[in-house]
Amino acid sequence: MSTYDDLLEISNELNNVQNAIYLLAWDERTYMPEGAVEGRSETISDLSRIYHRLITSDRLKKVLDELNKESVNAELDDLQKAAVREMTRDFERRYNIPDELIKEMAKVSSKAQAAWEKARERSDFEHFLPHLKKQVELKKKVAEYIGYESEPYDALVDSYEPGFTAKKIKHIFDPMKRKLSTLVKEILEKDITPGKGVFDDKKFEIEKQKKLCRELAEIIGYDFHHGRLDEAVHPFTMGMDDDVRITNRYTDENISSLFSLLHESGHGIYEQGIPEEWYGHPLGQRISMGYHESQSRMWENFVGRSREFMSFLYPKLTDTFPVLSDHEEENIYQAINRVEPSYIRVEADEVTYNLHIALRFDIELGMFRDELEPHETQEVWKDKMDKYFGIVPDDPAKGVLQDVHWSSGDFGYFPSYALGNLYAAQIYKTASDEIDNIQERIANGEFTEVKKWLNENIHQHGRRYRAEEMTKRLTGESLSEDFYIDYLKGKYGPIYGI
Amino acid sequence: MSTYDDLLEISNELNNVQNAIYLLAWDERTYMPEGAVEGRSETISDLSRIYHRLITSDRLKKVLDELNKESVNAELDDLQKAAVREMTRDFERRYNIPDELIKEMAKVSSKAQAAWEKARERSDFEHFLPHLKKQVELKKKVAEYIGYESEPYDALVDSYEPGFTAKKIKHIFDPMKRKLSTLVKEILEKDITPGKGVFDDKKFEIEKQKKLCRELAEIIGYDFHHGRLDEAVHPFTMGMDDDVRITNRYTDENISSLFSLLHESGHGIYEQGIPEEWYGHPLGQRISMGYHESQSRMWENFVGRSREFMSFLYPKLTDTFPVLSDHEEENIYQAINRVEPSYIRVEADEVTYNLHIALRFDIELGMFRDELEPHETQEVWKDKMDKYFGIVPDDPAKGVLQDVHWSSGDFGYFPSYALGNLYAAQIYKTASDEIDNIQERIANGEFTEVKKWLNENIHQHGRRYRAEEMTKRLTGESLSEDFYIDYLKGKYGPIYGI
Repeated sequence: MSTYDDLLEISNELNNVQNAIYLLAWDERTYMPEGAVEGRSETISDLSRIYHRLITSDRLKKVLDELNKESVNAELDDLQKAAVREMTRDFERRYNIPDELIKEMAKVSSKAQAAWEKARERSDFEHFLPHLKKQVELKKKVAEYIGYESEPYDALVDSYEPGFTAKKIKHIFDPMKRKLSTLVKEILEKDITPGKGVFDDKKFEIEKQKKLCRELAEIIGYDFHHGRLDEAVHPFTMGMDDDVRITNRYTDENISSLFSLLHESGHGIYEQGIPEEWYGHPLGQRISMGYHESQSRMWENFVGRSREFMSFLYPKLTDTFPVLSDHEEENIYQAINRVEPSYIRVEADEVTYNLHIALRFDIELGMFRDELEPHETQEVWKDKMDKYFGIVPDDPAKGVLQDVHWSSGDFGYFPSYALGNLYAAQIYKTASDEIDNIQERIANGEFTEVKKWLNENIHQHGRRYRAEEMTKRLTGESLSEDFYIDYLKGKYGPIYGI
Repeated sequence: MSTYDDLLEISNELNNVQNAIYLLAWDERTYMPEGAVEGRSETISDLSRIYHRLITSDRLKKVLDELNKESVNAELDDLQKAAVREMTRDFERRYNIPDELIKEMAKVSSKAQAAWEKARERSDFEHFLPHLKKQVELKKKVAEYIGYESEPYDALVDSYEPGFTAKKIKHIFDPMKRKLSTLVKEILEKDITPGKGVFDDKKFEIEKQKKLCRELAEIIGYDFHHGRLDEAVHPFTMGMDDDVRITNRYTDENISSLFSLLHESGHGIYEQGIPEEWYGHPLGQRISMGYHESQSRMWENFVGRSREFMSFLYPKLTDTFPVLSDHEEENIYQAINRVEPSYIRVEADEVTYNLHIALRFDIELGMFRDELEPHETQEVWKDKMDKYFGIVPDDPAKGVLQDVHWSSGDFGYFPSYALGNLYAAQIYKTASDEIDNIQERIANGEFTEVKKWLNENIHQHGRRYRAEEMTKRLTGESLSEDFYIDYLKGKYGPIYGI
């Protein structure tokens, strides 16, 4: 067996342990009995430890050392080189962190998450503050062990967006913030409510929503032969090679489930697009969290909330919910695209969403650059909400305590959500140029070409190309906020008469 | 950390890997999408390999060597000694088998199972025969590596019934066969059909069966806070510490689902009875397959198919299925206790069941003693069916090909099913002596005392005592077939007027 084959064998074993952890996590959020919380968390943590042992093993170290030798590496083809590059990255990000620190992180996270839950319940920021401090402190240490380009925050961002740094993000986010703020102001000054009253005082039977959701997932190309659709409080997608599962949640007050379904199906179609021969291969992975989000956002918003999609959806929708037949297509289209400043990120519309992210990014970066103390975050949060949206949360549960990320130490994760929207806009523009009559296709419910385009241009490459290279290959340009701003203006201009 | 603590840590990690494998297997048989078969089998096989590496690790070897030193062992208390004894057993049964042989077994089993499925579909014994030969040959090798008391088959039996040997089983099975054959003959000579026509031309709505099943499981003491009830083609129970799941299957033609539910609940109650402080402990396991089966059989048959249980069940049953109200309690009781010679083991009644097992035991032992060649099994099967029941399967799918066990190399497993019935009879007799008014309790739907008795006398001890010791502790006597024969005579005498 060659050293490269050795690498593939280790990668395959890592992948199978990961798949087991994914199934344990999927089950935990769908079917697990209530009384099994403790045992499950122990099982997951033991398997994570086994994963860690494998990925920091001497065997893998030897294999990578050999494959990274100049003379040996030169003999590999481009794909093999990419595989070695990505596995080396995975190895190095873990290998240098002392076991003690890993144990400490697990302990701190577990306590911080419990404290965060209580703090949010009681709207008591002070209860969470010591844990926030501890997490920031720990992650600064971790960043030193991992190493970074120019500042500690880079090491964290790089976990979710390989190759990105605080500076690169700032370079995009700063102009984005200005432009979005202007657009939000213009919209709010109009003081109108598009699609007013469409969902008011109506009930939408959940069983019917489920049926329609399943149908939509199938129509856009999610494959149920290798997947499932279940319920979860916080919808998520879990990809385990030939088994990619999506989840959704339902309320009988509106039809938001259809859009969360399209969102998760977008994630699912990405996962299902990884080629079979790459299951367990170092490159058989997603490019980044931002790229993942670009796929879900594309199906949810760029396709799903488009005027053309409403033409396609309207007959099905009114057939399923006759109570909506009193409203015209255009009316429902406007109702699902209403722009409203809101406290909660996960409920935000397309226009305001990235500002919620920018706010979090500024605060995180401030803490990691020692320009902002954890105890100041609550006030800074309020100031920024006031500045962007003119609203100020008086309840920290609707402000600084709303997201789980900081309690689990996931600093550097938020930017990926906004990058997802930016990637989506830039990619979707290219797709629209390259796919004949894309609007007509969508209006007719023909999604094969769109899915095929994404499969061929993005999904099938796994993580062979990093995000920046992929964006250039796809669109001919580096990532820029302009595409998203143009998209929003083109869409919301007509809705708000701007 | 002491060496004994080391042992507990290893045991705990093994247990968590095992729990992950169990969840993967549970999911495979309940919710997994069809297209995920290949990936799942790879994931399970990789985790099994990791399990094998852990249980044959140098670290565990050192720990056990140390704890088995006379001077060290003498310092341990009885419970610790039992823990060391059981872990040593698990270790030794694995450690001596060469990795090559383990790989070969996995490969052969995978091929043999596929061949068996095809063979059964096509009723073609010849198609399976070469794989049967290969499996017997391999398992003879394995037995040599594991070691045995007096013959290779002992090593296999010992996997499922620790401490048992071919001779011990024969010593019980031989008189059992004679006595059961006599009883079967007496019953068949009567030529009557108890409870005739009760289920004929009726439909039993499956949704209603499910509701009643859930209710029954709760009433007898299965805990849904730490469990679930799902559907599966072949019902099974999966115990993962604080998460013990049962499954069931349904047909609208009769109410057999109620008894398979009681059977699986019996397994579930056993698993749920392992004390919390023993999760991951070397003794936090079941005594043997036979003891497991004794618990399921007890709830299914000794309790569930008793005359008293029918008194309790009748109002619920007729309430759920008014179509049964035309029949009296006694009538339905007789219908669920009809004795009929049949080809298929899993459909057999209480009286004939152990003869199906004896037949398989004789054939297996014949092959492992080189007194019978694999190619002769089909004919021997027919001869024995004729001898015991006076019926001869002309289709091997209803004969030698009906069970999955040989295709997966699980020789030595069958006896546990019959031992389960024998244990159940012997234990239930003691329980009936010790629990006040047990019959009245059952008729009133009060199962708390029965469950408590089993919890306290059996479940809470994990595998601290081996089957033979446990049986003596519980009943004051060694295992004997007499209790089962007496039970059958006492029950079926009145039904058949013998």
